[in-house]
Amino acid sequence: MSKKPLILVTNDDGITAPGIRALIEVMNELGEVVVVAPDSPQSGMGHAITINSTLFVEKVSVDKGEQDEYSCSGTPADCVKLAIKQILKRRPDLCVSGVNHGSNSSINVIYSGTMSAALEAGIEGIPAIGFSLLDYNWNADFEPSKPFIKTIVKNALKNGIPNGVVLNVNLPNLKEKDIKGIKVCRQAKANWEEEFDKRKNPQGRDYYWLTGKFVNLDQGEDTDEWALEHGYVSVVPVQFDLTAHHAIQNLNSWKLND
Amino acid sequence: MSKKPLILVTNDDGITAPGIRALIEVMNELGEVVVVAPDSPQSGMGHAITINSTLFVEKVSVDKGEQDEYSCSGTPADCVKLAIKQILKRRPDLCVSGVNHGSNSSINVIYSGTMSAALEAGIEGIPAIGFSLLDYNWNADFEPSKPFIKTIVKNALKNGIPNGVVLNVNLPNLKEKDIKGIKVCRQAKANWEEEFDKRKNPQGRDYYWLTGKFVNLDQGEDTDEWALEHGYVSVVPVQFDLTAHHAIQNLNSWKLND
Repeated sequence: MSKKPLILVTNDDGITAPGIRALIEVMNELGEVVVVAPDSPQSGMGHAITINSTLFVEKVSVDKGEQDEYSCSGTPADCVKLAIKQILKRRPDLCVSGVNHGSNSSINVIYSGTMSAALEAGIEGIPAIGFSLLDYNWNADFEPSKPFIKTIVKNALKNGIPNGVVLNVNLPNLKEKDIKGIKVCRQAKANWEEEFDKRKNPQGRDYYWLTGKFVNLDQGEDTDEWALEHGYVSVVPVQFDLTAHHAIQNLNSWKLND
Repeated sequence: MSKKPLILVTNDDGITAPGIRALIEVMNELGEVVVVAPDSPQSGMGHAITINSTLFVEKVSVDKGEQDEYSCSGTPADCVKLAIKQILKRRPDLCVSGVNHGSNSSINVIYSGTMSAALEAGIEGIPAIGFSLLDYNWNADFEPSKPFIKTIVKNALKNGIPNGVVLNVNLPNLKEKDIKGIKVCRQAKANWEEEFDKRKNPQGRDYYWLTGKFVNLDQGEDTDEWALEHGYVSVVPVQFDLTAHHAIQNLNSWKLND
């Protein structure tokens, strides 16, 4: 029991992002920390993996913490695969990803590189948690998040995380005294209403910028969006078995084999 | 009722891939077809979206079919967003993605650009199906798949697809007479055992190629892997609410707010 847990830390904003620095600082208080993170920002990469391409890894030192650090040319999912198969001397007891600069609540989980790293670890059977702060700024203040991150990770190390599940944690952008607590939630039903900003390039060819606004379509009070709007840290258990089991019966009534 | 359904076709192997050509041919028999697909292969992109970058779209003509076609510089998810918001004159009645050159069964759904396009349409409330053939070759034979694709799409147009669900269809690489039928399945529990092939570049720097082998960990006879191994077309209903509802009670026993 005296052996410290081995904690793998990664993210998708890149190894030098303030969000991962904050996460490493908290993890150094809880275990032996190895960081394997992308060498540049990967946001919006979804669950991409690098095939037909080469991956470079370099041992680096970014701050004065006790952790070992490796910078990788791949995606967050690549970093987790490389860490587990090549870099770490034993299987990690936990993988944490983030702290992302910006929300990964509700439908954003689908697009999230932060969560894809956590899912990758989960698929490999390693307990995993993604953390995201609701502030997109590079200079976001991660201090208020730290005690909540610590509480969640301590609980995960003590209790384990249910099989086939990883945790999607979002932190409200509030002062510590204004954060009301931690709430276990379901993913809110929401989407993005995209607008494409159509322009002409200097050669006269049309192109588009993707813009859009987030729309919460869910009135439930048990959702991550509700929790975050009301000052709570949201914890959603996320699964990578995507089967809609409730729909199987409906589909079995189709005439597929007549 | 005389109005033909509007069918949006996309993929992740690129607009000139034989797989999408086969899918377009079948769809032309069932509705009015508009193709919006990536101008180059996007495999392994997961659910990436293009932010902080520009999207180009071009009207193209690839074969002699009746469909309208647009080639797009973005990812499969981008193509769907652009099609719905910018290109199509009305909401499509169905979005089909594929036919992918290679399997997207079981855990591969997580990494799949083909399925990310279908999920994107599903999130927008449009019935959607992803199709994949278990043959990675560019010159794969899509002929045996066509009658099964047609049956599934006709059923989807007639019955609708349950809300919040898209279909992940995989087709065995067999002659038509050897395909036993269509089976509604759950996603098999499986993963990839990765190996990294470590090499040195000409400058002496280490790099890695990602390789690996697929491992089915699931003995169930109601899975997509079982169906495909036994000569069936697999249809898995896939949801984009990733909440592991069964895990919420367990997490509520944690001491998160002491």
